[in-house]
Amino acid sequence: MQSRAAILRAAAKLFSEQGFAGTSLKDVAEELGMTKGAVYHHFTNKESIAVAVVEEHYARWPVVLAEVQALGLPPLETCRELLDRVAATFRDDDMVRAGARLQIERTVHKVRLPEPYVGWVELLTRLLSEARDAGQLRAGLVPEVAASAIVAGFFGVQHVSESLHERSDLQQRWRDMADLLFRSLRTD
Amino acid sequence: MQSRAAILRAAAKLFSEQGFAGTSLKDVAEELGMTKGAVYHHFTNKESIAVAVVEEHYARWPVVLAEVQALGLPPLETCRELLDRVAATFRDDDMVRAGARLQIERTVHKVRLPEPYVGWVELLTRLLSEARDAGQLRAGLVPEVAASAIVAGFFGVQHVSESLHERSDLQQRWRDMADLLFRSLRTD
Repeated sequence: MQSRAAILRAAAKLFSEQGFAGTSLKDVAEELGMTKGAVYHHFTNKESIAVAVVEEHYARWPVVLAEVQALGLPPLETCRELLDRVAATFRDDDMVRAGARLQIERTVHKVRLPEPYVGWVELLTRLLSEARDAGQLRAGLVPEVAASAIVAGFFGVQHVSESLHERSDLQQRWRDMADLLFRSLRTD
Repeated sequence: MQSRAAILRAAAKLFSEQGFAGTSLKDVAEELGMTKGAVYHHFTNKESIAVAVVEEHYARWPVVLAEVQALGLPPLETCRELLDRVAATFRDDDMVRAGARLQIERTVHKVRLPEPYVGWVELLTRLLSEARDAGQLRAGLVPEVAASAIVAGFFGVQHVSESLHERSDLQQRWRDMADLLFRSLRTD
């Protein structure tokens, strides 16, 4: 299992820097000083490595969520703190960056990856429903509608920041976006 | 010039449906019943057609802006009406859809396209500065910061809507996003 994890880390670094088409299974092996055969022992092809990288990307979030929930904040503050921490991973964590790039390139490489966005919409819908029940949400706001807007807003900010500034301004841009969105969510 | 415009329309249809890698110059010629030679009379290669399609995408916006400005709305309402109309073009206009897809695929095809997002941030910064001068903007809001958030929010909504629902829910999702963002922009 150690070498499987090492393969995923090396692949994540390469996918995040060079994309799917720009990375070969041979590149991954060479990055680790392994033979291609040793990589094939764990993965049947480059596509299956890409799927595993994206799954690792998504596996980050329950961990971050548990850490934030341990703080015992009210639901709306939990939601904001969670997303602030996730924004940091989009700049610093190769697995997260690689997963994001593989998803963005899905119309080209056509690998069957886990469906993007919907898991986040469900998670935020749950947190915003708790916020509503706790009286934190402005009257009339529908949690799923607000959750969808937050997910699209987060995705947009990280992508524009990546395209223009390699995500160097991501945390500030996300704070600006979140300040505007969350201001509209709260009870007046 | 008529055949140049026809080539761009055909290429836009193909690029929007099949992406850059999935479209050949031969496909464009066949779509029009032209020879490849006739296409080469107007464009040196597929890359130059892609650049021209993206330029046509951006050339849409001054036209829509002029139409909206002719309504004589206050600056903040001009901004909102402009973006509502732009959202409709992302669903219905092949040239707009193709430009968006070519931009999203830029990390893969590596064609030198016009820089995305910055023109929109400049335009919205100008409109929001007018809104501030007209007393429509909440005190302390920086037009450029709000403009960047709106651009990222719009981009995020159209991309998520495209990925999950081929943009069938784009106008509703954009209204939801815009309602939240613009509520935070206005004077209390």
